[in-house]
Amino acid sequence: MTAAHTVAVLGAGNLGAPIAYRLGFFGHRVTSYDISDDAVAAARTRMHKIAENYVRDLEDVDKHQADKVPDKIRMTTSLAEAAQGADFIIEAAPENLEVKRATYAQLAPQLEEKTVLLTNTSLLLPSDMMDATGRPEKFLAYHFANTIHLRNIVEIMPTRETDPEVTDAVVDFARTLGMKPIRLHREHAGYVINSLFSTWMRHARDLWVKGVADIETIDDVAEVIASGPDLRPFYAQDRIGFNVSYNVNKVRAAEGDAAAAEYCRRIKEDFMDKGHIGIESGEGFYIYDDERRPIRLSDAAHKHYEPID
Amino acid sequence: MTAAHTVAVLGAGNLGAPIAYRLGFFGHRVTSYDISDDAVAAARTRMHKIAENYVRDLEDVDKHQADKVPDKIRMTTSLAEAAQGADFIIEAAPENLEVKRATYAQLAPQLEEKTVLLTNTSLLLPSDMMDATGRPEKFLAYHFANTIHLRNIVEIMPTRETDPEVTDAVVDFARTLGMKPIRLHREHAGYVINSLFSTWMRHARDLWVKGVADIETIDDVAEVIASGPDLRPFYAQDRIGFNVSYNVNKVRAAEGDAAAAEYCRRIKEDFMDKGHIGIESGEGFYIYDDERRPIRLSDAAHKHYEPID
Repeated sequence: MTAAHTVAVLGAGNLGAPIAYRLGFFGHRVTSYDISDDAVAAARTRMHKIAENYVRDLEDVDKHQADKVPDKIRMTTSLAEAAQGADFIIEAAPENLEVKRATYAQLAPQLEEKTVLLTNTSLLLPSDMMDATGRPEKFLAYHFANTIHLRNIVEIMPTRETDPEVTDAVVDFARTLGMKPIRLHREHAGYVINSLFSTWMRHARDLWVKGVADIETIDDVAEVIASGPDLRPFYAQDRIGFNVSYNVNKVRAAEGDAAAAEYCRRIKEDFMDKGHIGIESGEGFYIYDDERRPIRLSDAAHKHYEPID
Repeated sequence: MTAAHTVAVLGAGNLGAPIAYRLGFFGHRVTSYDISDDAVAAARTRMHKIAENYVRDLEDVDKHQADKVPDKIRMTTSLAEAAQGADFIIEAAPENLEVKRATYAQLAPQLEEKTVLLTNTSLLLPSDMMDATGRPEKFLAYHFANTIHLRNIVEIMPTRETDPEVTDAVVDFARTLGMKPIRLHREHAGYVINSLFSTWMRHARDLWVKGVADIETIDDVAEVIASGPDLRPFYAQDRIGFNVSYNVNKVRAAEGDAAAAEYCRRIKEDFMDKGHIGIESGEGFYIYDDERRPIRLSDAAHKHYEPID
């Protein structure tokens, strides 16, 4: 592996402990911080439980190695100790803006110049706390999925103030944890995962509340959709064909949906006008081989556009 | 199998031909109707191609049997011939309200008393065409998924005028085609599948158009979500725990979201107040065993509620 980093994780609860464990598992020097001795003691127990999960759920995990990880993690109730020498500090404090801001304010004077701050917030935006950090250029959101040993992705969401080189560095850092970095270009509440997922949940809720279908029926249908190839939305678009979506979005655009209008503009000018209308034509957002299998993203799909609000 | 039915399919294109084939494959007496001799000839070729797909994609399909199916299907350009003796007529005409209404109007005087009419519309509502059928009590929507030999579900959506016994009968009919019937209680544009799916697609589109993330990133994240256990929304709710969702929906309700308010009322009164808050408590929308596996839907999840609009 690459050089070990010195990393502190603030908060040793259900979110923080698995992150600290993972850092230790991948050979980084880890300090796990929480506010009380009781919390720290509970975290140690929690980490031994996590070790069991690694052994049970993952292949090629040596039990002896996994069990040793918790003992290598330094536990502390001192923020100064956590901050000392840290390359990265991952904040997994309670999901409350005032608590997080207070944590950063307390932390700021104790930080070394090099330290990059990462918030694991699920629901808040990093720009709402960046001023409290005293170093907005070295601060961004770094969101781990739940049960990270099974869903090893991390969403990386900078603010407008984050130094792009810092973002590059934390993308590399994610890879040293065996995590796939998911890079966002712009702040969005819920990132990609939770915003997509909550849209799905809300729609299911509406179908039930409106009496359209029963709970189990909705779950069964959702499973049918999930089991098909179509859950990758842009790949699905290529399968459906751009003409269909263009027509659907044209109607929505006429009703005042600005995102639909912009979508129509992009797919018409950069795809349809060039004869690229999806799998049927061999190219859409992806390029396909003769057996209709995606080979790679098309050049047009890499184009940079001005985002709409 | 149960007794063979006499069934006509109106429209022998990309949607109608696979339906006619499936009916024939499962031993029903099938007439496939389209408007021109050319369309009928094309349909025959299409059905032989479908036979190949059955042999290629499905286990336990005898090639000889599959190849014989198209020849057993009666092809016609006469609506009267299609209507004759039909227990069920499945209309898969072009997705245009006027075309469909005109088809029903032309068909109405030629129907036998017993015939049940089923529209395979994807986007329209059956109540917008029911008066043209002359028999709204024997008319409802019957929506097959694409590539029905791989995704064998049919969504069954009656109008307010549909006789519930007719709905029961077509639920049974779906089972004779090896299709899982998905019963809707109320009309909803896009049924369950397409409305859930299009919500998902629209959100992905917005993430791209707003510059939040790249195309491939969004697809990759969607795939991570789909590969997890959480795509069944009510099961996911049980995993998340009702307290979290209650708080989220309470905020939305306060902002004027009536569905969120109704959702809060239901989960509080019928679940949370009884100590059922999801998997953690052993019961939520589903009941769980000691190893947190769902056993069956909970009694409360079967409760009938007045739908909201």
